[in-house]
This record gives sequence, C-alpha cells and structure tokens, in this order.
Amino acid sequence: MQTVIASRSKTVVIDRDGPFVIIGERLNPTGRQKLAEDLCSLRMDVVRREALAQVEAGADALDVNAGIPGADEARLLAEAVRAVMGAVDVPLCIDSSSAEALEAGLAVCEGKPLVNSVTGEEASLSRVLPLVKKHGAAVIGLTTDERGILNHPGERLRIARKILQRAADYSIPPEDVIIDPLALPVGGGPRRGVVTLESIRLLATELKVNVSVGASNVSFGLPNRLALNAAFLPLAMGAGLSCALTNPLVSETRRAILAADLLLGKEGAPARWLEHHRK
Amino acid sequence: MQTVIASRSKTVVIDRDGPFVIIGERLNPTGRQKLAEDLCSLRMDVVRREALAQVEAGADALDVNAGIPGADEARLLAEAVRAVMGAVDVPLCIDSSSAEALEAGLAVCEGKPLVNSVTGEEASLSRVLPLVKKHGAAVIGLTTDERGILNHPGERLRIARKILQRAADYSIPPEDVIIDPLALPVGGGPRRGVVTLESIRLLATELKVNVSVGASNVSFGLPNRLALNAAFLPLAMGAGLSCALTNPLVSETRRAILAADLLLGKEGAPARWLEHHRK
Repeated sequence: MQTVIASRSKTVVIDRDGPFVIIGERLNPTGRQKLAEDLCSLRMDVVRREALAQVEAGADALDVNAGIPGADEARLLAEAVRAVMGAVDVPLCIDSSSAEALEAGLAVCEGKPLVNSVTGEEASLSRVLPLVKKHGAAVIGLTTDERGILNHPGERLRIARKILQRAADYSIPPEDVIIDPLALPVGGGPRRGVVTLESIRLLATELKVNVSVGASNVSFGLPNRLALNAAFLPLAMGAGLSCALTNPLVSETRRAILAADLLLGKEGAPARWLEHHRK
Repeated sequence: MQTVIASRSKTVVIDRDGPFVIIGERLNPTGRQKLAEDLCSLRMDVVRREALAQVEAGADALDVNAGIPGADEARLLAEAVRAVMGAVDVPLCIDSSSAEALEAGLAVCEGKPLVNSVTGEEASLSRVLPLVKKHGAAVIGLTTDERGILNHPGERLRIARKILQRAADYSIPPEDVIIDPLALPVGGGPRRGVVTLESIRLLATELKVNVSVGASNVSFGLPNRLALNAAFLPLAMGAGLSCALTNPLVSETRRAILAADLLLGKEGAPARWLEHHRK
C-alpha cells in the first residue's frame, strides 16, 4: 500500500516494499528550551537551520511541532510551517494534540502533508478526521483510545481497524492512514519490545497499511540509547515498519536504516550505501 | 527446540526463545598469516590468547579451525582444540571440511562439541554424520548440496529436511542439528539479503530447528562492514536466528546482539545491557 505525501513540488511515497522513509523528529520544542524560546519569539532561524540540517542528513519528510505550554500553539505552528517551507522542499508532518493548531498548520501548508495524529478516542476521531479530509492530507493513527495504551498487539490492531473504519466514513482511503502502534520504552518491562514488534507485524500483514513509530522512544531511560535505537530499526523494518519519526542527524540511526534497506533488498539501497560512505 | 552443547564443565543452551549464542569465529587461519604460521609450528600462545579474548568479550562457544593448505590439518586441529581447552572452559565448534580432521578434533575434545559442518551432499552426510553420532556431538548442517548453493529459501528448506532425515537415520535427534542457510554477501545481488532472511524464517518456523549463520559474511566487499553486520544481526534474530559464528571482539557486533536480545524480550537481557555499559 502506498501513502503519497508531498511538498510544493516534491513527492514522497511511503511503501513497505520501497525504501524506508525518515520523518525528521527534531522540530519539536519538548525538552528543548532554546527552540521553545525561539519559537515563542517567532525567531525562526533555528527552525530553518534544523529543517535544512535534517534534510541534508537524509530526512525525507519533517515533523513540525510547536506545542509549548501556555503559548498560542496554533499561531506558532502556522509560523513554523511557513518557516520550514521557506527553507526546504520536503513534505511536512503537522504535529499537535490540538485540533485548532492542526487546522492552523494545515491551512498554511502547501502540498499534501501528514497529520500527526489522530487516536482511537471519539473526541480525536471526530475532530481530526474532518480536518484531514478537508485539507486532503494523510494522517497518522495512534493505537490508543479512552482506555489508554493497551499492552496487547491484538487490541492495538482492533483500535487500528476502528481508526481506518472511521477514516473511511469520512472518505479518507486506507492508504492515507498510517498506523503508529506506539513504541514504548523497553526499559519498562520485558515484553515491551516484543509487543511493539508483534504489533508492527500484525498491522503490516493483517491490515496491509503503512506502519510508523516514534523510533527514538524505545531506548528511553537506558544507557547507550543510540545503539539500542540502531538495533530497533532493523528489527522493526524486518517486521514491516515503512517509516519512522526519528533523528537523521544521528549517524548510527541513519546507517542502521540504510543498512537494513540494503539487507531487505530495497530499490536503490546499494547505491545509497556506497554514496553515504563516499562522503 | 534446545540444542545443548558443553565443555568439560560448562553447558550452553541454544534456543530461539533464549539469549542469543555467540560462537567466536576468530580461531580460523583463513586470511590470517600469523595465526597460520603459529598453528603450523604448534606455537599455541596466539591461539590461547585469542580464545581467552573472545570469551572475555562475550563468546559463549568458540569455533576452532586449522585448515591450512598443505598442512597436516588433523594434527593441527587436535592440537588447537587441546590448547583452547587449556585456556578456556566453553563448548567448542570443531570446524573443518575434512572428515579426518573433524575426527581428530572430536577425539580430543571434552564435553559435547558442535561439528562444523555437514552439507546436503551424500559424501558429506555419509562421512560426517557417523562421526557426530560416535562422539555424541551436535552438528551444523549447511543447506548446500551437489548443485551448490541454491538461491531460493524453499530449496534450502528442502536440503535442511534431507539433512535432518539423514541425521535421524543415524539416531541423531533434530535438536542436535543446527541449520545454517548460508548468508551470502549482500553486495552480490539485490535479493541476497532477502533470501537469507526468508530462509532463516522458514527454517525456524517450519522445522523449528535452531538456525545459525556466519554473520560476518553478509557485508563482504562493501564499505563499513561493521555497521552492515550490526544491522544484519537484529534483522536475522527477528527472523528466528538463535546463534551465529561472529566476532565478539567487535563492539558494534556485541552491542547489536545485546540490544536485539533486549528488544526481543530475552531472559536476563536488561541486566546484561546494563552490565555491558558499566564496564
């Protein structure tokens, strides 16, 4: 199944059988005081620099988040989206838990962005999906609902089905819904990694949808997070992951993805591996 | 399925549901001029040092190979096995393409070693399997036969079935046969990695046997081999690999295995990850 997203002039195809798609995660003020201050003051230099650096490092698309407690998120997100579009020409992933902010970001975004995200909760489905439809976007569906995050792959599959069904009710086709089964930190319990990987496999094989995760999350709280993330990505790609929010500036991450693409026989991967090592 | 191998006093269980088992690959003179010279002159200091270093770096078992063109391989292998047993107390993997050398190595080896290897060729099956039975060893079966290496997972599965059947004819139980589907270098063609991974999955799910590969081989001829190997191991472990001949002295390799064990929920893996990063 192919999810097509686009910027003004560039199209990116997300497809399990194609090269892995990196959605740069760095434009997010959570835990980044300086970026938060710059965003609040509408100083967009850092935003533009960060956008450019991620694309140069191999990001195929960029997540843009302006969630700062107490700030006018809708306005900041729209301004950040504008700044990023002025700096780079890649599809964007408009990221907010506020429907109002999503709408403001979507209103200024050119091309066909991703919306990050809708959940299986009624309040989210009924507010976010109409925005996705109205703006002709694609959307990331998180497999969580009123009960929180369920620790069973079958339950996550059930929520994914519900999101797809509700999307269909709004005439959003399944290829425009990417499911994120939620990669919880593996330090939290011995079954955490297995549940994530089984969920990815189940979603990819049962629903045939594209599957994404926030790939840096798995290593939270453990030493040598980069090595853990670098091992998680090949495992998840082998299980059927087609894209991820991650940090392409980390060379371990970038290399793990290029290597897994090569090992999984993805088109153009040998040339990309050689090119990456010529730099 | 559990393959149990042992040294004089130490037992190692190879099991897809348990921690990954590293068989140290370094005691092999192929391409190592100094080691070859030392072996030929029966100077066993380097052999002992190399054995110790691999075990300290995390090898659970050690492969011992003395294949030097023109040398008395049987005698050298027996001497090398003796030297290694004098230096470390881990199960050994007696490695030769010569049945005579295998017999000499097995004759002096204490515990329950692995024999590396038998193939699907009649000449190999009829010479190696009686040795495995006679010495109460376990054996690695390579999925190649008179036709060479076949580029189709189903064909490799067929050869594996034949090896298991012939082993059963000698009263060698399936848990004492580890299948190696042969990981060819991925630089050799776009389907190479996929065929290896599909073969691993097929062997692990259809035959339930333990699966091993020579894990350093996949990256042959490509730049940044260590990063490729480090991505291959999690992919292969996710597909069902339970052990591998590899180099534990390479920190990327060791970490990729520890990380994948942690992500796959293997017993004791969180503690091993923390311990590894305390050093």
